Amino acid sequence: MRLKRRAVSTSIVRPLITLTTDFGLADAYVATMKAALLREAPDARLIDVTHQVPRHDILCGSITLARAIDGFPPGTLHLAVIDPGVGTSRRILVAEINRQIVVCPDNGLITWSWRTHGGGEVRELTWRPRKASDVFHGRDIMAPAIGMIACGANLDELSRPIENPILLDIAPAPRENKQGQIIHIDHFGNATTNIAHDALRAHIMRGVKVKGRNVGKLKKTYWDVAPGKPLALIGSSGLLEIAVRDGSAASDLKLRVGDPVKIDLAVS
Amino acid sequence: MRLKRRAVSTSIVRPLITLTTDFGLADAYVATMKAALLREAPDARLIDVTHQVPRHDILCGSITLARAIDGFPPGTLHLAVIDPGVGTSRRILVAEINRQIVVCPDNGLITWSWRTHGGGEVRELTWRPRKASDVFHGRDIMAPAIGMIACGANLDELSRPIENPILLDIAPAPRENKQGQIIHIDHFGNATTNIAHDALRAHIMRGVKVKGRNVGKLKKTYWDVAPGKPLALIGSSGLLEIAVRDGSAASDLKLRVGDPVKIDLAVS
Amino acid sequence: MRLKRRAVSTSIVRPLITLTTDFGLADAYVATMKAALLREAPDARLIDVTHQVPRHDILCGSITLARAIDGFPPGTLHLAVIDPGVGTSRRILVAEINRQIVVCPDNGLITWSWRTHGGGEVRELTWRPRKASDVFHGRDIMAPAIGMIACGANLDELSRPIENPILLDIAPAPRENKQGQIIHIDHFGNATTNIAHDALRAHIMRGVKVKGRNVGKLKKTYWDVAPGKPLALIGSSGLLEIAVRDGSAASDLKLRVGDPVKIDLAVS
Repeated sequence: MRLKRRAVSTSIVRPLITLTTDFGLADAYVATMKAALLREAPDARLIDVTHQVPRHDILCGSITLARAIDGFPPGTLHLAVIDPGVGTSRRILVAEINRQIVVCPDNGLITWSWRTHGGGEVRELTWRPRKASDVFHGRDIMAPAIGMIACGANLDELSRPIENPILLDIAPAPRENKQGQIIHIDHFGNATTNIAHDALRAHIMRGVKVKGRNVGKLKKTYWDVAPGKPLALIGSSGLLEIAVRDGSAASDLKLRVGDPVKIDLAVS
Repeated sequence: MRLKRRAVSTSIVRPLITLTTDFGLADAYVATMKAALLREAPDARLIDVTHQVPRHDILCGSITLARAIDGFPPGTLHLAVIDPGVGTSRRILVAEINRQIVVCPDNGLITWSWRTHGGGEVRELTWRPRKASDVFHGRDIMAPAIGMIACGANLDELSRPIENPILLDIAPAPRENKQGQIIHIDHFGNATTNIAHDALRAHIMRGVKVKGRNVGKLKKTYWDVAPGKPLALIGSSGLLEIAVRDGSAASDLKLRVGDPVKIDLAVS
Repeated sequence: MRLKRRAVSTSIVRPLITLTTDFGLADAYVATMKAALLREAPDARLIDVTHQVPRHDILCGSITLARAIDGFPPGTLHLAVIDPGVGTSRRILVAEINRQIVVCPDNGLITWSWRTHGGGEVRELTWRPRKASDVFHGRDIMAPAIGMIACGANLDELSRPIENPILLDIAPAPRENKQGQIIHIDHFGNATTNIAHDALRAHIMRGVKVKGRNVGKLKKTYWDVAPGKPLALIGSSGLLEIAVRDGSAASDLKLRVGDPVKIDLAVS
């Protein structure tokens, strides 16, 4: 039996805002950024995505941000601050992707969500506070800006349209391709690839090869192999994933971001 | 002088929901699970218990969940996802323990709270979403379910009563026993045992022995011994604890979960 | 173009409370402390500053707490629990600093905020619950107390004025000084000193010396030096900071808290 779903509305009085950074959890940086945000949007519901993106790792931040965008409902706002170029002339973006708003430095952070959702509307944040440090624009510029946007500020007054956000040289594997690469290693050591679920459906597979090793046909769950054995399955983000049951694919198979993954097709 | 306590009511409009997982804090898993929960219960107050349960460590998750249940008021809901059997036919539980609701996989996670509160009402979650991955039931099934329950969904429509949840082979030491074991090591290296405070009251103790070493009579605070010295005291959960002042009992005394602890009684 | 700021008021119905502890994130300690707080102040907005202060490191806790106080608006409350003396007769403080409230053990935790804001009103918490453990006053005493204060409890009924909070032997470098010391190492390995921005303005600097090594004139951003090179700049807290671009000053320059930092002045 299924319950009827209640209508869910994203209330403007309690905006939902996620945070993705490389600040770590040992210092007051995250809290002071939240303080700046809450000054503008006191009723915001703040959700930490992670603050443990490896320092300056824009690719990892891009994948993680995209996961958040995929998980949250329309109207959610996302603040992502991995910002090695802070204090330079690098731009700050306000992008609309998948009916959600992203505020982040223009350094490639929006790449994965941009590519998987076929782009979006992107603007440069022109608003600046009266006073900002040269070393913490997350707190001084981006947090108040996203707070104002969450409360309904006019984007035309804060920003101007641009055409060419910086994008990393990474993309979903084209459907017709028989290979891709590892784009992310998670906490469990699972290796996510850039090969989408629906791209695989078109093929009759004999197996998946990673770094020359065949890890077998696509499985449904970890339990489809014995403990300690590698497998390929569709991860929770809908992408092909290489895992080791009760183990770490990253360390057991020595996998790294960038490693090639090959789909072995049956002759059909 | 003591202040009068104001009446505190658990409001159905802002349910209190805790989260205990082994997802770690580096990925978007926790955030996307919260997103799924907030779609159903947009005004929920979410409290992270921990996301650093060691991977697949159901005993540790069980102890940690029980601490949360002991700490939160009636009406609180608890989502606990340490779920090595995800994608298999393992059941999902909705349990009422100590006037609180727990949603978790049926793999032993409710053991410690179940045993210390003399059981509870336990049901199998029968509700399933139209679409769920095979690898992330925390996000796809348990989070929306607990959100619906928090908002007052009818348990009879979501679940059915069962009698026999899976329980680990661990329990509070019986009162008449003079020994127990270590069940948990915390962040400080303190070792919690399964020997309850009130069980100790019945005895006139000469000392506490752990792995053959006498750590003396029961102390009240860490300051009752010199820095670096071991002691036995009642921890914040009301259980006998082995600690080292300004040190780590776990590493200094080489203690592990499962190690025996013996109460040395005086001849009375 | 700048937006007009909306009036922001700190609502008594949704008090803003931060938390700074050395509890770590692996156990239920933080959650049970929040539970105790929320029983008194169910609508509080809780912001974690950090729970990863190194165990018993009161100086680090003091600096981190001060950062939170500097970042949050008037009316914010701060609960800081690094409490090696729990269970002894050490006092618990309720201090008003910079129009914010701090509740913490009287062990030096308020030092840095006290010194940088020229002191404040300080009281001893006299309120005690009917029942408290001897090992977790954060949960049993301080959390309910700050919850009651957040909800408007009368400070005269909970506490009494005192004059002499315990202060650590550390302070901002006097303006006329040409030297100071490292007081904090952050997650990135940046080393914060006790030399304030405005103290530096008075001088014409030739360079900054740390442990005998000249790291050059004051820079504006990390990009003012080549990758891997050390620099001195004003950090986000307004204090002189020693950093290494894309690296860790702490490990690359072997810096530690307490190390001397010297300003090399030009002959003017």
